[in-house]
Amino acid sequence: MELFAVPGLPEIRDGDDLAAMIDERVDLREGDVVVVASTVVSKAEGRTFDLSDFPASERAEAVADRLAEIAGEEKDPRFAQAVIEESTELIMEAPFLLTATRFGHIGVNAGIDQSNVPDGDLLLLPERPSESAARIREGIAADRVVVSDTCGRPFRHGQRGVAIGWAGLPASRDWRGERDRDGREMGVTVQNVIDELASAANLVAGEGDGGTPVVVVRDWEFGDHDGSDNHFREVEGDFVRQALRQWTFDD
Amino acid sequence: MELFAVPGLPEIRDGDDLAAMIDERVDLREGDVVVVASTVVSKAEGRTFDLSDFPASERAEAVADRLAEIAGEEKDPRFAQAVIEESTELIMEAPFLLTATRFGHIGVNAGIDQSNVPDGDLLLLPERPSESAARIREGIAADRVVVSDTCGRPFRHGQRGVAIGWAGLPASRDWRGERDRDGREMGVTVQNVIDELASAANLVAGEGDGGTPVVVVRDWEFGDHDGSDNHFREVEGDFVRQALRQWTFDD
Repeated sequence: MELFAVPGLPEIRDGDDLAAMIDERVDLREGDVVVVASTVVSKAEGRTFDLSDFPASERAEAVADRLAEIAGEEKDPRFAQAVIEESTELIMEAPFLLTATRFGHIGVNAGIDQSNVPDGDLLLLPERPSESAARIREGIAADRVVVSDTCGRPFRHGQRGVAIGWAGLPASRDWRGERDRDGREMGVTVQNVIDELASAANLVAGEGDGGTPVVVVRDWEFGDHDGSDNHFREVEGDFVRQALRQWTFDD
Repeated sequence: MELFAVPGLPEIRDGDDLAAMIDERVDLREGDVVVVASTVVSKAEGRTFDLSDFPASERAEAVADRLAEIAGEEKDPRFAQAVIEESTELIMEAPFLLTATRFGHIGVNAGIDQSNVPDGDLLLLPERPSESAARIREGIAADRVVVSDTCGRPFRHGQRGVAIGWAGLPASRDWRGERDRDGREMGVTVQNVIDELASAANLVAGEGDGGTPVVVVRDWEFGDHDGSDNHFREVEGDFVRQALRQWTFDD
C-alpha cells in the first residue's frame, strides 16, 4: 500500500470543479482510493459563511453566555447559532459544544472551522459528505472516494483523521464468521476501513502545512469480505451519547 | 509513504525473540516505523493465561451475574476477575465491561482477547506496551516502534487500529502556533500520529487473515514539529469518562 499527496492544488474557491482539479494533477488508477479533506470539499461547495449570516436566537445567546462564563472570555452567540443550525442535537453544551450533525457525525462545534477560511468567518462541513464523495467519484479516474475530517475523541489525546463521507467502497470490512489461518474465529469483527484510510491519509496530508488536502491510497484492496455501510452510531446502542445526555458539567 | 506486512512470521510463542524474528525477515531501514500487533507482543511475553488462573472474587461474581442477566447467557466470573485484575477502574459494568487498564488505555474487557489464543483461554494485553516497544526497538534496525491494538469507540461503528505503546517517536505532532501556507493558524492543533500509524497498518495487517501482525511504514517523516507524549487522557479533562461514571445502564 502506498500513499501520496496530490501536488499543486491551489486554494479552492466556491464553484471549483474539485474532481477535475484532482484528476488533471495525478494519473489516477481505477483501484485508487482518493481521500479528500472536507475543508476543500466545503470550499468548493460554497460552505463558507460570515457570522452575520447567523443572527443569534435566545437559545444561542444562552449557550454562548454559559461558554463565556466557563472560558472567562467573550463567545460570539452567532457562532453558537451556526452550530445549532448545523446540528440535530446538542449532546454537550459545556464546557464545549459537542453535537450530532444532520448527517450523523458527532463532533465539537458541529465540525465548523474558524481557522482556515479565506473568504469568510466560518467554514461549515459539507451538507451531505457521502453525496459529495459520490460527485467527486464521477469526475475522476479512481473508483473510490473518502471525504475526511480531523477531530478529537474521548479517552485519547489529540486528533486523528476520520471519514465523514464515502463512495465506491463499504465503510467497514465485516469479518464476522471468518477464521484466521489456524481456523480460529477472528478477534476483530467489524473493521472500519474508511476511518483507517482517513487516518492514514492524514499522516501524509499533514506534511504540506495544510497545502496537500487530497491524498491517493494506491494498492490497497478491500479484499473478499462482507461490507457494511454502518458508520455513525444511532443514539440507541450508543451508551456514551446516552450518558452524556444525562451529564452536566460542573465548574 | 509505503506500508507492507512482514512476511512469513510463524505463530509466536512465549519467550520468542520477536525483534530478531522481525529483523531477519525484512531489510529494515533506520527511518521505518514498525507497527507490531499487541497479540504477538503478548504471546512472546507470556501473557497467555487460563481461566483457572483467575479464581473469581465476590465482585467478579456480581459483575458476571449482571452481564449474564442482560445477555441471557452464562458469563464466566473468572473472565470478569481477569478484567478486574488488569484494570484500575471499571468505568462501565453493564451492558459490557469498559475499563481503564493499568497503563492508561480504556477499552472493553481491558483488551483481553478470548478468540485467538492457541495455548490458553485468555490473551492479556502487554503489561507495559511502551516498554515492550522500546525492547523491540533495541533488537531491530528500525528506529521507531508502535504496539497496536484494535478496538471500538463511542459515536462510530466498527473497530480501528490504535496505538497502546510506542518508542522512538512522540505520540503526537503539536501544530499549535504553526501557520498554514497562507499564514493562518492551523486548524488541527495536536495530531495523534501513533494512532494514525496503527490505523494505517491495520489496513495492511488485515489482508493476511490475521497472519501478518507486523507492518512496516516506510518513508513517513514526523517532520519539523514539536512532539508530545500525551496519549491516554487522565480522568480530569475526560468528560466522557466522568459522564460514564455517573451513568447506569437501564435494561
